[in-house]
Amino acid sequence: MDKDQIVKTAHALADAAREAVLPFFRAEGLLADNKEAGAGFDPVTEGDRAAEIAMRKILGEMRPQDGILGEEFGSQTGTSGLTWVLDPIDGTRSFMSGTPTWGVLIALSSDAGPLYGLIDQPYINERFEGGLGIARMTGPQGERVLKVRGDRPLNESILFTTFPEVGSAAEGAAFTAVKNKARLTRYGLDCYAYALLAAGQLDLVIEAGLEAYDIQAPIAVIEAAGGIVTDWSGGPVHQGGRVVAAAGRQQHEAALEILSHVS
Amino acid sequence: MDKDQIVKTAHALADAAREAVLPFFRAEGLLADNKEAGAGFDPVTEGDRAAEIAMRKILGEMRPQDGILGEEFGSQTGTSGLTWVLDPIDGTRSFMSGTPTWGVLIALSSDAGPLYGLIDQPYINERFEGGLGIARMTGPQGERVLKVRGDRPLNESILFTTFPEVGSAAEGAAFTAVKNKARLTRYGLDCYAYALLAAGQLDLVIEAGLEAYDIQAPIAVIEAAGGIVTDWSGGPVHQGGRVVAAAGRQQHEAALEILSHVS
Repeated sequence: MDKDQIVKTAHALADAAREAVLPFFRAEGLLADNKEAGAGFDPVTEGDRAAEIAMRKILGEMRPQDGILGEEFGSQTGTSGLTWVLDPIDGTRSFMSGTPTWGVLIALSSDAGPLYGLIDQPYINERFEGGLGIARMTGPQGERVLKVRGDRPLNESILFTTFPEVGSAAEGAAFTAVKNKARLTRYGLDCYAYALLAAGQLDLVIEAGLEAYDIQAPIAVIEAAGGIVTDWSGGPVHQGGRVVAAAGRQQHEAALEILSHVS
Repeated sequence: MDKDQIVKTAHALADAAREAVLPFFRAEGLLADNKEAGAGFDPVTEGDRAAEIAMRKILGEMRPQDGILGEEFGSQTGTSGLTWVLDPIDGTRSFMSGTPTWGVLIALSSDAGPLYGLIDQPYINERFEGGLGIARMTGPQGERVLKVRGDRPLNESILFTTFPEVGSAAEGAAFTAVKNKARLTRYGLDCYAYALLAAGQLDLVIEAGLEAYDIQAPIAVIEAAGGIVTDWSGGPVHQGGRVVAAAGRQQHEAALEILSHVS
């Protein structure tokens, strides 16, 4: 496996996605339609599609042997046993309200899970990556090593999720039980919360109903930074579902003690 | 009134606050203490204090005739009838969790309310300002005119607040009633939500329990961009309290219809 070429490809994808997406961010007359009419609110922007098309084109040139799983245009099988997992705009609701906490998610995965992941925030010019020996971010303050903050009791922990409702009623109740024991709870960041966890800024991210393309890049980035990402039973979660990401074993176990009771 | 010198002073204050605050953002071992011990969670960082000290020093040199009202060090009377209203870090919870949606708030006000306001996000390098004939932002995409999106029905509106609980039980219930009629509700942005409203990205910001220094800069920026900021009864709110900011008269009236019933 050519690690350098994989990382080079990932950055080429992220660069192309940035170029495709940024003209649509905070643009007038942004086109958004609803791909699940009547079933909740899931805007898909033109930028989303343009970015995935640009990334698929690059993969066809640089890594034709690999499979592709993309949010917008589905899956394409490869011959290498490796698959690029792409979410061109994770956090479309953030995107459409002008909030720079959406991100481009890129992972390279085998059947066992992600080997490498990248979270890019084009507007802020921040890029977080982990796996294949890498754990770093670049941004307005230059390059930094990604390292989680480590063990901390739940009552000193900072908790994030995207929506206060979290998921089903039972999922929401379990989240609230964790929240009531945490020091501080914040909302609304989508993938950016996972990036901040990897960067040592917070302790727990708890979400439900995620897709594989929502979580594979965060898993690689957080694990490379020394963190833990599982489902609510402590099992692997790279296929999506209910996610708990933790900056240390102590926070993770305290959260699982509550979350694992949800059937 | 020397408008150019006022604007020059405001930018000098924002530059000084940036320089004082940024070293503390995402820093290891960030000092935070609790100024209201036992009465909720209100962290005050060293950055907060350093920024206000730096800004007060500049005002002493450039505008000694004006009063000062600061979040950290209280009020100082002047002789000009004008007061600089300073909140060095609005959104300390965002700040302490590494989220770049806190801001430095600077306003120049008379007894009747703010004449000019500035909202600065140092990490992203974004600055929003309004009043004295100005309505503009600078940021990663260069300089742009600030202009609210205009009238829109509530069921097509994007609504923001900082905490899902909003305030008291009655205030929270009123917020939820507005939320249930809005298209999309997002949380957690502090002053950055007001900046995005002025930049045409969202329709409504509803909050309770604000201080004068939390809202005076947003009022000036939003009004300069063509928006409306009042209390929940439609009256002036520059002294703080319950705030509704709107991108158009239609959203404002629809929100007031619900919010004005809270006694």
